[in-house]
Amino acid sequence: MQWYFVAALLTILTSSQGILTTLSQSNGKYLYDYATVPFLAEVFKLVVSSILLWRECQASPSTQMTTDWKTVRLYPIPSVIYLIHNNVQFATLVYVDTSTYQIMGNLKIVTTGILFRLFLKRKLSNLQWMAIVLLAVGTTTSQVKGCGEASCDSLFSAPIQGYMLGILSACLSALAGVYTEFLMKKNNDSLYWQNVQLYTFGAIFNMARLLLDDFRHGFENGPWWQRLFYGYTFTTWMVVLNLGSTGLLVSWLMKYADNIVKVYSTSMAMLLTMVLSIYLFTFKPTLQLFLGIIICMMSLHMYFAPRNMLVDISVTAKAASESLKEVSVDRRSDS
Amino acid sequence: MQWYFVAALLTILTSSQGILTTLSQSNGKYLYDYATVPFLAEVFKLVVSSILLWRECQASPSTQMTTDWKTVRLYPIPSVIYLIHNNVQFATLVYVDTSTYQIMGNLKIVTTGILFRLFLKRKLSNLQWMAIVLLAVGTTTSQVKGCGEASCDSLFSAPIQGYMLGILSACLSALAGVYTEFLMKKNNDSLYWQNVQLYTFGAIFNMARLLLDDFRHGFENGPWWQRLFYGYTFTTWMVVLNLGSTGLLVSWLMKYADNIVKVYSTSMAMLLTMVLSIYLFTFKPTLQLFLGIIICMMSLHMYFAPRNMLVDISVTAKAASESLKEVSVDRRSDS
Repeated sequence: MQWYFVAALLTILTSSQGILTTLSQSNGKYLYDYATVPFLAEVFKLVVSSILLWRECQASPSTQMTTDWKTVRLYPIPSVIYLIHNNVQFATLVYVDTSTYQIMGNLKIVTTGILFRLFLKRKLSNLQWMAIVLLAVGTTTSQVKGCGEASCDSLFSAPIQGYMLGILSACLSALAGVYTEFLMKKNNDSLYWQNVQLYTFGAIFNMARLLLDDFRHGFENGPWWQRLFYGYTFTTWMVVLNLGSTGLLVSWLMKYADNIVKVYSTSMAMLLTMVLSIYLFTFKPTLQLFLGIIICMMSLHMYFAPRNMLVDISVTAKAASESLKEVSVDRRSDS
Repeated sequence: MQWYFVAALLTILTSSQGILTTLSQSNGKYLYDYATVPFLAEVFKLVVSSILLWRECQASPSTQMTTDWKTVRLYPIPSVIYLIHNNVQFATLVYVDTSTYQIMGNLKIVTTGILFRLFLKRKLSNLQWMAIVLLAVGTTTSQVKGCGEASCDSLFSAPIQGYMLGILSACLSALAGVYTEFLMKKNNDSLYWQNVQLYTFGAIFNMARLLLDDFRHGFENGPWWQRLFYGYTFTTWMVVLNLGSTGLLVSWLMKYADNIVKVYSTSMAMLLTMVLSIYLFTFKPTLQLFLGIIICMMSLHMYFAPRNMLVDISVTAKAASESLKEVSVDRRSDS
């Protein structure tokens, strides 16, 4: 399977996620407990991966599965990072409003690039760095508040703690992604076996979170398992399946492509959601959305296009070959 | 003189132009006739160029000056194009409001690139094309209306004639620039001699325009020469000198650099004006201005940075040299 096919599919599914979530509401409210959705998505991913692993083992008995504790113990770490990230997110929202939070969220594109370079030691060209910054600028541009919208001057007026937590949040989000990539590429284990470990811990951590929330609220809504399917409609199930499927695609990309591909997929998905919202939810098209799309498309082209397409290499290559011809002439006169 | 020094100076002076013009007003109104400013600037440029030409002729009698009618007759053409452009501008403003007009003005960056390629046959790399589009996107981003500003949904709601005239205006503006570059580079004539011709026609056309306006208004304010210095303050004279100086720098760039350099200078000047306005006129800094500046800086780097700085050429050069080594080995076995 080609990575760009998976990336395109991830873009479409991530984009549907936002739309399905909106459609699953009744009059702007959830009639079901949204916190149960990520848990069920983890279970879905675990079931799918287990079946695929079983089939793979049937087909080839040589399926590689590292089961020693030294490796297995690394698999809860992404869940732990996400848990911390989640709490930092809540803390950030104490200091900044949601739209500032959303704008700051684009920082994770840049932090992913930085951690990708630092931890995974992947070299990026000057142009690729520019492409990454432009992607963040492009998504931010599309989110610039238009005229007529409320709460104007909030972006530069939040307390410093809000910005610090926003940066921390972007770093944690990037760290989770980069760490997962490291984990998936660490050895040649079967992707499905790696998924089974990842999602087992994912399901456990999500369950713990639900239980913790119950304790916090003094079980006023009953234990979480009683709310599990309560108020679920067909659309809610679609949200669960969609979230699970995007998770599986991300996992595939982490093993066979990389974090930057994932970041492009999800950024493009955000823009696609905004465009689709124009038709589906009579969202007003803005100049900034149009500009944001152009910037992100340029960034995509800059990052992934072959470099001889971007610059006229022939001149440089000719210069290189000229100097080499001289060398070969020298050699011939030597011999 | 290095072109980037001239370009930087042009950026500073163009930026001052907007600020000086604002400072020359009293309570937001001009106490002098603004239409007289471009005429006096033309006269200033003509005087300066004449003096410089005279000095050049004194220094070297071999100063090249083509005086045959076939060449001289080309020099009024830029003035004619500007005259048409001016009228198209007025017609456009019948259909669109000033802020939509300002946004559409950024199109001239792209049209300049296109005419530069078509008429001057200058090849641009894929990356340079992207840089030009990004420059237009960046300047447009900086102008996106923030929340709280009036007349919201005007941009996509103007009549089609407005957009057509806006495009025509962008094409004429680009054509004037590209034609001037063609004229300045056509032969090795002294820059000052070319300027003298250009500004003589410029002064005549500006004078004709002032006279035409007088006829239109039935001489209700008297003939233009009576209004020439009326209400002029020190700042007004600075506006004249500044406009004249930027014209001389543009002329230099057209001969020794090109239109794209000029477009970058004036675009950067627009951003610089906005930044300076924050301090001088308590203009409110916006997120879109910040994003626009990043985009334009990226564009600048993409267009002008040496390509081996942007992409890792070594891989490609190595591939080229590998194939060449094989050739040289083949040759050696032949001999």
